[in-house]
Amino acid sequence: MSEHADVLFTNARLATMADGVGDEGYGIVDDGAVAVRDGRIVWAGPRQEAPAAVREHDCGGLWLTPGLVDCHTHIVHAGNRSDEWEARLNGASYEDIARQGGGIMSTVRATRAASEEELLRQSSPRIAALLAEGVTTLEIKSGYGLDLAAEAKMLRVARRVGMVFPVNVATTFLGAHALPPEFAGRADEYIVELCERMLPALAQEGLVDAVDAFCERIGFTHAQTAMVFEAARQFGLPVKLHAEQLSDQGGAALVADYGGLSADHLEYLSREGAAAMARAGTVAVLLPGAYYFLRETTPPPLALLRELGVPLALATDCNPGTSPMTSLLLALNMACTLWRMTPLEALRGVTVNAARALGRADIGSIEPGKRADLALWDIARPADLAYAIGANPCRLVVNGGVPRAPRVSLTV
Amino acid sequence: MSEHADVLFTNARLATMADGVGDEGYGIVDDGAVAVRDGRIVWAGPRQEAPAAVREHDCGGLWLTPGLVDCHTHIVHAGNRSDEWEARLNGASYEDIARQGGGIMSTVRATRAASEEELLRQSSPRIAALLAEGVTTLEIKSGYGLDLAAEAKMLRVARRVGMVFPVNVATTFLGAHALPPEFAGRADEYIVELCERMLPALAQEGLVDAVDAFCERIGFTHAQTAMVFEAARQFGLPVKLHAEQLSDQGGAALVADYGGLSADHLEYLSREGAAAMARAGTVAVLLPGAYYFLRETTPPPLALLRELGVPLALATDCNPGTSPMTSLLLALNMACTLWRMTPLEALRGVTVNAARALGRADIGSIEPGKRADLALWDIARPADLAYAIGANPCRLVVNGGVPRAPRVSLTV
Ligand SMILES: [Zn+2]
Ligand SMILES: [Zn+2]
Repeated sequence: MSEHADVLFTNARLATMADGVGDEGYGIVDDGAVAVRDGRIVWAGPRQEAPAAVREHDCGGLWLTPGLVDCHTHIVHAGNRSDEWEARLNGASYEDIARQGGGIMSTVRATRAASEEELLRQSSPRIAALLAEGVTTLEIKSGYGLDLAAEAKMLRVARRVGMVFPVNVATTFLGAHALPPEFAGRADEYIVELCERMLPALAQEGLVDAVDAFCERIGFTHAQTAMVFEAARQFGLPVKLHAEQLSDQGGAALVADYGGLSADHLEYLSREGAAAMARAGTVAVLLPGAYYFLRETTPPPLALLRELGVPLALATDCNPGTSPMTSLLLALNMACTLWRMTPLEALRGVTVNAARALGRADIGSIEPGKRADLALWDIARPADLAYAIGANPCRLVVNGGVPRAPRVSLTV
Repeated sequence: MSEHADVLFTNARLATMADGVGDEGYGIVDDGAVAVRDGRIVWAGPRQEAPAAVREHDCGGLWLTPGLVDCHTHIVHAGNRSDEWEARLNGASYEDIARQGGGIMSTVRATRAASEEELLRQSSPRIAALLAEGVTTLEIKSGYGLDLAAEAKMLRVARRVGMVFPVNVATTFLGAHALPPEFAGRADEYIVELCERMLPALAQEGLVDAVDAFCERIGFTHAQTAMVFEAARQFGLPVKLHAEQLSDQGGAALVADYGGLSADHLEYLSREGAAAMARAGTVAVLLPGAYYFLRETTPPPLALLRELGVPLALATDCNPGTSPMTSLLLALNMACTLWRMTPLEALRGVTVNAARALGRADIGSIEPGKRADLALWDIARPADLAYAIGANPCRLVVNGGVPRAPRVSLTV
């Protein structure tokens, strides 16, 4: 290097998560250092070979990993659904709940009614909880607005999250999340509205990094999903899909056909779907929080995904109906406990593979050229991140080279 | 009241958890206040009826509950077992692990080798995690020492936890946790050593608030457990028992016969055992973290326990082998999600009923005469404490009338 680095993070044990590097796949460097210039990693390796830097940050021998990436959330929403959850546990039937206006439409009503300020205020503690665990990149979906104005509001709030919090936000337009009541019985018309009016306006405003849909018997059909993907293609936007969560709809193969970034959930994925994903490089985003909270018993086909070499990612799926979870570390534990993923697969799932699920080559591992997004942990070994239940051993987070305390104050 | 209170916690929504009081069993007072004098609650009720106080603490309209009680933990121990957990997930057999010295004996070795300072230092982040969630009383068991010196060390560290942290500690002597290697094949002799030498010395030193054992095919027999309880009775110490976790050993009826405070785990509890507990007032301490982490499929018989009116408590069971969990709120969620407990049962399980499981009439609810141990929460309703996964909405904790921030700095 011809110039000095700005800062050298030194006296750290590295788990670089770089492909094909180091010990047992974590990319372990025992007495390591990471050099940063202009917010990017310019060097990582053994401390004694480190380049000179203007400043040094002593990591006290703790473990340094890439900042975590939560690649599937519905974290911006108003209200919660603990009332109907409690009613169910107290014996109310689904019909009782529906009669009282419960379910996803209660979140749609609350989200439509909330101002941008209010949406941001209500979402902030959830976001702060993720950030406290070393999350440096966060995907946020719309999908509780279901009309142009309310979807735009959700996506604007998602963009504001990236401004008021030290986190990198990727927005996803999920207008095809549920059928809005205004279009009851007219799903095809809603999809036309979505493709011809909503998506163009939102893309025009720069609010959409990717496009998603919910392809399911209780969501949208294969044909409707294909229409959404065609519209996305017209705008050059990458696609992803809520696929095969409750039944096999051929969604994984569909999103793979469109070169999709990810297919998410996948409990009912077929071999054909997995093979299509492998060919297209589509990431399998697995969501153990929803599996746990819904007490599902059919796990995603891990052996098949491993056999075919489909990259595996994990995310919180943070949402009020099926995964009211704001801990990405818990998703690691659940994936290992409930599905027998390995701790290495789990950590790859929230770093390098989660980055792939967002189409982001510039994050997810500690390697020269990547953003200096890092997390520092007081742990004995990387497996502790998946092993501990409810602990937060994060001691420092670095966003684009800038260190911060894990717990950010709520600025709104 | 003839004298002013020291402090009035006001502008709070109360969930007093007092038996037979208020709305839906939470004991809700919508615009409430709590008056404290000399560390005790002297009054609780609607704000407009509150007595005068020297100082007022405005709770900002948040929810105030009793401080939480974690009534079953093995939180003082050295090392962790993420290495063997990872090895298992990577395909190692139990035999492989055992050959490498894994299992409970690896924790015994690490705990025996650690100094008091080191034990306290290693346990501190786990304790701080519980305290951040509003825990004001914490039970801590011995049981990784398995000889007099090491059991005494563990219990002294437990006592020190109560001195260096703002938490009330209840100690439990669990010498009959596992057979120490020195007594291999001589379990009866170990029980004699425990009853005639270890317990007398520990009780004499004031280290033992209660006595516990692990009655199981892989633990100690019914007869050995009875010997331990007889010894406890000689010292006037209350008993509790790890009972019916993996099989029905008649442990619940045994501990009930001794007027035991609690029988814990209980997945394989019989009707006879439950009836004996109901007669004796023995609390059922359910441990969903271990159930989850071990992927058990036989839940404790909740319908039976409800039918017979056995009080239900919940705890973390924090331990490195079967429940590496340091979030009591997660235990609430797991009990509701996995076993369909109600959020009210869950919250009673970590307040009023957890207090009963420790034989403590002075904590567990917001009522005159009780210790002013309180927790303040930024939630919409009490059910949120069980509904959210991985959130910590605790905003203030009160220990004996003294407010503190939820996150305590690690003093060791
Ligand atoms: Zn989702
Ligand atoms: Zn235990």
